[in-house]
Amino acid sequence: MVVLPELRKDPITDRWVIIATDRAQRPSDFAREPVEFTPGRICPFCPGMETKTPPEVLAIRDGGAPNQPGWSLRVVPNKLPLLGIEGELNRQGEGMFDKMDGLGAHEVIIETSVHTENLASMPEKQVERVVWAFRERVLDLKKDKRLRYILLFKNYGAAAGATMEHPHSQLIALPVVPKRVQEEMDGAIKYFGFKERCVFCDLIRQEMKDQTRVVSETDRFVVIEPWASRFPFETWILPRRHQSHFESIDQKDLEGLAFVLRSTLRKLERVLEKPAYNFVIHTAPVQDAASDYFHWHIELMPKLTKLAGFEWGTGFYTNPTPPEESARFLRDAGLS
Amino acid sequence: MVVLPELRKDPITDRWVIIATDRAQRPSDFAREPVEFTPGRICPFCPGMETKTPPEVLAIRDGGAPNQPGWSLRVVPNKLPLLGIEGELNRQGEGMFDKMDGLGAHEVIIETSVHTENLASMPEKQVERVVWAFRERVLDLKKDKRLRYILLFKNYGAAAGATMEHPHSQLIALPVVPKRVQEEMDGAIKYFGFKERCVFCDLIRQEMKDQTRVVSETDRFVVIEPWASRFPFETWILPRRHQSHFESIDQKDLEGLAFVLRSTLRKLERVLEKPAYNFVIHTAPVQDAASDYFHWHIELMPKLTKLAGFEWGTGFYTNPTPPEESARFLRDAGLS
Repeated sequence: MVVLPELRKDPITDRWVIIATDRAQRPSDFAREPVEFTPGRICPFCPGMETKTPPEVLAIRDGGAPNQPGWSLRVVPNKLPLLGIEGELNRQGEGMFDKMDGLGAHEVIIETSVHTENLASMPEKQVERVVWAFRERVLDLKKDKRLRYILLFKNYGAAAGATMEHPHSQLIALPVVPKRVQEEMDGAIKYFGFKERCVFCDLIRQEMKDQTRVVSETDRFVVIEPWASRFPFETWILPRRHQSHFESIDQKDLEGLAFVLRSTLRKLERVLEKPAYNFVIHTAPVQDAASDYFHWHIELMPKLTKLAGFEWGTGFYTNPTPPEESARFLRDAGLS
Repeated sequence: MVVLPELRKDPITDRWVIIATDRAQRPSDFAREPVEFTPGRICPFCPGMETKTPPEVLAIRDGGAPNQPGWSLRVVPNKLPLLGIEGELNRQGEGMFDKMDGLGAHEVIIETSVHTENLASMPEKQVERVVWAFRERVLDLKKDKRLRYILLFKNYGAAAGATMEHPHSQLIALPVVPKRVQEEMDGAIKYFGFKERCVFCDLIRQEMKDQTRVVSETDRFVVIEPWASRFPFETWILPRRHQSHFESIDQKDLEGLAFVLRSTLRKLERVLEKPAYNFVIHTAPVQDAASDYFHWHIELMPKLTKLAGFEWGTGFYTNPTPPEESARFLRDAGLS
């Protein structure tokens, strides 16, 4: 008897995913490009190279003047920014086509002074500083009312699009709310309109009850493999407490997030042998008031499979590893 | 003076793209993985190996019985289909989550019996057979009213997600109209509601007038680099004549499409040194009547850049090569 694959719908965005249970792949089945360091390269993010970056906008330092060694974390504007902070939006047409100037901000969070560390290997205290810097930069940039959305994300490893080895994350502030963010907001609003409950709060409750897709839980956060995972080992980190904006986190959240982010990355490293990955903080648009319907969270995607024509043509995803399986592998990783 | 990058909006889907004009990349700047053959591998798509695939559903053959050598093109069900044709949709819930069975079809169009050919190198007549087979399979499958959308696409080269070397395209028939297709339909309907004209017909008129993004034109087709190209050398092939459904093409269209598809791929091969690529035929849902607002076309995407956290988080794309530049490179390729 042929077992049909399962089509699963993401409850927030309505996107369908094909979970190909009969070709289910185990962690060792993926062709991986483990993240490795190339020795001897000159790195503009290392201590002593501060003049190779634009002047810092934020730093944690034991001593030393700005843009000198002595720091443990630095935030600097991207040297080749995708968007620039000066000027006007300057919306205009070219016949039927529309364009505007690339106004915004593009910053790099240099997570540590140690070139060979990463978020999984560095001390928990240092991850906490990184998360603190994320919050600080959003709180500062949201004062600029031209900036409508602020995205925090990380590309780790060349396969995930990283061009620099030195541990870093990125921030991009945009003059418009992007289409994908708006879709997620709209999905959450639709659910709230129907149920008068936050879809993410409901999702957390159901996952706590089912337990099959839970990776770990602490008093403040839960880590799950989502129902309609687009990719093998796609992992979400959600705060238990309802909060629409990431930048509203308090000191305890910040500590709790540092712990859970580091421990989740350690599990992924253990099970998938240092995979390349992307993570993105999903949060409500910065100029919006706190809302009952959206719930900030982190989406983490190890880079194990490739998008191809089918995904491009439809927006469907095909995932060869059911989230129940990947959750089990991560729970069994033997790490707290 | 800092030149701000340009944000451009796709007139159909409203997606924004950052065209980073100041870091503009020429064809030689991309790290490429040229598509190459591994000699000596046993190939289940080669003549004499017909028993290695499920029985053919369509073939062009000079002689020989079905599923025997003597063919120049074969269409077979995928051996590991993403979706199966037998059964029912069987929609059901699991708490707040929704699922259904993976009902549909997944077929492989084996484009030629010659393992080492490709759509750019094979005779034009053979490309015509491929396009003919595309149409035949859609016309046959659309009789099954459970199938709501039929996607034709090609992954060429491992970097674009191909797992088999032998020249082939794929067809996937789905029991739902996918989200991305519906978005494109909705965008076209919105434009039609505003202008009472097809957005693609308008786009062709403007591109013919501007000429800056035109790669080539024939009496039946135009080839352009779209205004809001998501990727370097993204290329669209559009029929001049308004038609919502690909499968409505007549014999002359079929010949014209074979010519223009082959010649476009030859130009991309010349300029980008045999790049991996995906193409997807964008067409209206098969069970819908012919419409005034949608216009079928092919979107072709050479695989030169990687998606990273920013793209995942926002649905924005960043393209380091303005379409006006890539159009010029392709026009100058010195091929008809």
